[in-house]
Amino acid sequence: MLGCGRIGQVHALTIRRLDDVRVTAVADVFPEAAQSLADRIGAQAMDPDAVLASAKVDAVVIATPTDTHYDLIHAAARAGKAIFCEKPVDMSADRIRDCIAVVEETGVPFMTAFNRRFDPNFASLQARIRAGEIGQVELVTIMSRDPSPPPISYIQRSGGIFRDMMIHDFDMARFLLGEEPVQIFAVGSALVDPEIGAAGDVDTAAVTLTTSSGAICQITNSRRAVYGYDQRVEVHGAGGMLRAGNVLENTVELATGAGFRSAPTRHFFLERYEAAYRAEVVHFIEAVAGGTTVSPDVQDGLAAQLLADAAAESLTTGKPVAL
Amino acid sequence: MLGCGRIGQVHALTIRRLDDVRVTAVADVFPEAAQSLADRIGAQAMDPDAVLASAKVDAVVIATPTDTHYDLIHAAARAGKAIFCEKPVDMSADRIRDCIAVVEETGVPFMTAFNRRFDPNFASLQARIRAGEIGQVELVTIMSRDPSPPPISYIQRSGGIFRDMMIHDFDMARFLLGEEPVQIFAVGSALVDPEIGAAGDVDTAAVTLTTSSGAICQITNSRRAVYGYDQRVEVHGAGGMLRAGNVLENTVELATGAGFRSAPTRHFFLERYEAAYRAEVVHFIEAVAGGTTVSPDVQDGLAAQLLADAAAESLTTGKPVAL
Amino acid sequence: MLGCGRIGQVHALTIRRLDDVRVTAVADVFPEAAQSLADRIGAQAMDPDAVLASAKVDAVVIATPTDTHYDLIHAAARAGKAIFCEKPVDMSADRIRDCIAVVEETGVPFMTAFNRRFDPNFASLQARIRAGEIGQVELVTIMSRDPSPPPISYIQRSGGIFRDMMIHDFDMARFLLGEEPVQIFAVGSALVDPEIGAAGDVDTAAVTLTTSSGAICQITNSRRAVYGYDQRVEVHGAGGMLRAGNVLENTVELATGAGFRSAPTRHFFLERYEAAYRAEVVHFIEAVAGGTTVSPDVQDGLAAQLLADAAAESLTTGKPVAL
Amino acid sequence: MLGCGRIGQVHALTIRRLDDVRVTAVADVFPEAAQSLADRIGAQAMDPDAVLASAKVDAVVIATPTDTHYDLIHAAARAGKAIFCEKPVDMSADRIRDCIAVVEETGVPFMTAFNRRFDPNFASLQARIRAGEIGQVELVTIMSRDPSPPPISYIQRSGGIFRDMMIHDFDMARFLLGEEPVQIFAVGSALVDPEIGAAGDVDTAAVTLTTSSGAICQITNSRRAVYGYDQRVEVHGAGGMLRAGNVLENTVELATGAGFRSAPTRHFFLERYEAAYRAEVVHFIEAVAGGTTVSPDVQDGLAAQLLADAAAESLTTGKPVAL
Repeated sequence: MLGCGRIGQVHALTIRRLDDVRVTAVADVFPEAAQSLADRIGAQAMDPDAVLASAKVDAVVIATPTDTHYDLIHAAARAGKAIFCEKPVDMSADRIRDCIAVVEETGVPFMTAFNRRFDPNFASLQARIRAGEIGQVELVTIMSRDPSPPPISYIQRSGGIFRDMMIHDFDMARFLLGEEPVQIFAVGSALVDPEIGAAGDVDTAAVTLTTSSGAICQITNSRRAVYGYDQRVEVHGAGGMLRAGNVLENTVELATGAGFRSAPTRHFFLERYEAAYRAEVVHFIEAVAGGTTVSPDVQDGLAAQLLADAAAESLTTGKPVAL
Repeated sequence: MLGCGRIGQVHALTIRRLDDVRVTAVADVFPEAAQSLADRIGAQAMDPDAVLASAKVDAVVIATPTDTHYDLIHAAARAGKAIFCEKPVDMSADRIRDCIAVVEETGVPFMTAFNRRFDPNFASLQARIRAGEIGQVELVTIMSRDPSPPPISYIQRSGGIFRDMMIHDFDMARFLLGEEPVQIFAVGSALVDPEIGAAGDVDTAAVTLTTSSGAICQITNSRRAVYGYDQRVEVHGAGGMLRAGNVLENTVELATGAGFRSAPTRHFFLERYEAAYRAEVVHFIEAVAGGTTVSPDVQDGLAAQLLADAAAESLTTGKPVAL
Repeated sequence: MLGCGRIGQVHALTIRRLDDVRVTAVADVFPEAAQSLADRIGAQAMDPDAVLASAKVDAVVIATPTDTHYDLIHAAARAGKAIFCEKPVDMSADRIRDCIAVVEETGVPFMTAFNRRFDPNFASLQARIRAGEIGQVELVTIMSRDPSPPPISYIQRSGGIFRDMMIHDFDMARFLLGEEPVQIFAVGSALVDPEIGAAGDVDTAAVTLTTSSGAICQITNSRRAVYGYDQRVEVHGAGGMLRAGNVLENTVELATGAGFRSAPTRHFFLERYEAAYRAEVVHFIEAVAGGTTVSPDVQDGLAAQLLADAAAESLTTGKPVAL
Repeated sequence: MLGCGRIGQVHALTIRRLDDVRVTAVADVFPEAAQSLADRIGAQAMDPDAVLASAKVDAVVIATPTDTHYDLIHAAARAGKAIFCEKPVDMSADRIRDCIAVVEETGVPFMTAFNRRFDPNFASLQARIRAGEIGQVELVTIMSRDPSPPPISYIQRSGGIFRDMMIHDFDMARFLLGEEPVQIFAVGSALVDPEIGAAGDVDTAAVTLTTSSGAICQITNSRRAVYGYDQRVEVHGAGGMLRAGNVLENTVELATGAGFRSAPTRHFFLERYEAAYRAEVVHFIEAVAGGTTVSPDVQDGLAAQLLADAAAESLTTGKPVAL
């Protein structure tokens, strides 16, 4: 476990609950963070080089800040370790291409952690599209809204809404469409917080993707949703529609003179995607152990990043961008 | 149209909108009420005897107070008019039996206006049971709640909750079960308004019916539902469940930090059952015009009344009553 | 009633059910159509000139083919009649401007029949936005899908999907946004039927509108929805979200091993918008009778047409169009 | 951990995931079962006497067959261990009274594992009743249906549907009503499987409870629900209604010409009540560690058993039973 921050802890605690797999070593630039997590899960705190040198380590989870991914990926690949890497792989498409090169050269399994593909709802929906339940996909709508914006300091270095937030939806779009977009058009506004606009970003954005078959995908993002984390997809095909709705906090409904009121959606992303975090780690471990294909892979990481880059360009130029 | 009160007006205005049928004459003990409705729909105000004597009248709608039904049914049947009679046919089962006798003797079509059978939701549900979608019926749950209690003066002469309110549910139970109950058990309390208790009635009641095949039906009634008119049925069979939910005022949903809020149910029974009132009148007219069977008929009126009587007996004695 | 086709009949039968207003005269290029409707509602069949010359006529409903609107509007306005005109007012924005001129010059009330504004669900939703329930509008999503495409012959002369179908959504967008779009971008494909593509139109389309305040509106249209007429809007504001869902055929739900199945949406637009057709006619009549403002008016008819024209231009050029 | 069968494993794996608490010792009449679980969670397999004698054991989970509870409760209480006991405490009310005596005499904390009180949905609903959201409770409806019946061998020794299945609902009724029932009436039929009838039991049952305040509770049970585990409660009060619906397998919905289809409910009780199993164990551990009150306690175990006994009597005699 490289990186013992919030997402590193999530993965470590998830793995602790699995049979037949152990987190043997953890590393973090803050030694106390590494030690604290090591104590909690019964692992050993080491420095990253020692982790990569350890013969007891078959695979690494890279959960460090994005700007450290590049070097760790290269080192881990050269050490022959299977790699589970948090998204984004890197902020630069060119550097991701470098990572692809080393991964291909060394032949190590590499998984880009687009966790939403492993959400049981979205995973089931996509499997049913592939199984032909609604025929050829014609129109995809993806709506993602966070309960509230992150700190401005985060936005200033995140690469903006397309790279830190909508990147999940770009991956989801590719996952659901089953083909590559050929054009993207983006609009956006800073409506939630003027400081976001002052930081050069938008907090409300809408994107239209088109594919060579003529399928269309609309994505909307907002940094605000007072009723909780809002994550929905809807896919229309020739034979019908499949959609996956929100996960509510509970099933309780209150009826009064004002009508029927159900619970808000789950607010916290770790709770909303708890099952997805477990499933993606299980998928990675099973694939590495069984020698089967890991997905989404490093190419998927690049493809989503390229869409985010193109969306940012479209927002800036005011024109559609060909892909 | 015999009786120009609220329900008489509903039927008259419904018929006015139909092609190929007209309300030619209206009567009411208050001549102004008759004249007012006559003016509104282009009919002639007459006294009831004249209506029944008119050769232009093929059928009568009896929408007068319950204690006048008996005489009007006898007179209309002897005049050879088809009869559409508001429920209850009469407060006394013996007097309903007299009505059955005259209807059978004269052979006139007779419809007891249990409008809920004609609600598109309940009608569709029942048709799907009969079509075998859930197999043999095992368990029926019927919930009916009025938005607020009627005046005490009404309760004092209505025969009580089983005869003025749950009678609809008894008919619905027979409609859905497809067989006759053989036992009934009732409990009830005056929780909504102590004056209802002082008047010798209850305002919250629960009944259990059992049939000879072993099917069970639970019915609950309350004189209060702050969220609007509440009318639901749920039917379990060997192969699954069919249920029909409430009709909301509109489809608008509001999401805030408190959750998702949809509209209350339709509050007013005339609005809630608008389609049912139309469909029951159309059924009657088509059956009379086409010489086909009218349903629910006068026997159904008696059967529901006998269940109401037995429920009242069970409440009084505290014991189940065999039917 | 000028025009006795399908929509003319809808309006005529609606008016017949109202108190205090009558369709006195009907006209159609097919005299038998006019006579048939006249007989059904108790009106007189005339030629259009006679209708406009009649002193008994206060207002006209123009429900004739679009290419006849221009002349009828001019004639009716000069005859001092209030005008209820089916959409689109005209296929040409310039000709609509001529109509605006004659309406303003003569001062006659003029209503453009965008019926969806009068749907109880959408009307309630919009009123609640205006009442401030969700604060400032940030993002609007409108989805409209017809059960199946119209005949190719219709598409060939309708002006295309933006002018014959999405025009309703353009009006809805303006209604919900409460401000004018300043930019539009459109994409579209012929996925439902290649003949539609051969006719130079698309059958699946997505549009993005932006306003000067930064609000965004996404609209999708498809000529196909196997589950019935699909008409939804969703509006996000700073304080929450309001949405209006589909109207199902009934409330019955079936539970089996495959899950829970509810009814499809209402398939037929006349049934889906029955309440809206009534409410828009009532609004027009009350406004004309009471001397109050008619809305949507002729300017609204022009505004929607200009959006449709710009969408078509964007689809052709592949670029966003400034408005 | 006394008992290493299915439910014992559930509790052991749940505890393994908690911080600050450990399963130190496990026991089972089948040594291999104990050893297997011990290996899986890092505990020691012992015989029950050794467990109770161990100074390292603060509390025991009794998850053995019902007929062994009595002796283990006595031994554990005398050994001063806090007790978490699976329901039912015992099949005989008199023997439960003996258990109460020893628990009171020794003063050990004792929790009866009615897990459904800890389901987040039902727990939230009950807390909101107690918080006064719907005022005084008037009517409670509880529906519980298992996906399919247990083996006949289980039914033959379970004490019947009221004692092995509806006992959960009796506890839920008391939990929601907030007062004790004073009368019970039960009906039932063997409709699912005639062998169940031949074994002297019913598989479809309905019960009506009444309280001294006049509140009414209706419970239905069935051994069959093809659409999955069906567990719903609905509570009406003077000020409105609170209900908790089913937990579906996922949020995916399919729309086709047949309508809208959502997933079935979760089929397996361990999955349906996963969160409840965790919450009840956490409650017990926190109460024992913190010296706070454990609930539901041994008296709650008795109260539910007495209701089950009375329901069985009512079914046999055909009469309501006073409590």
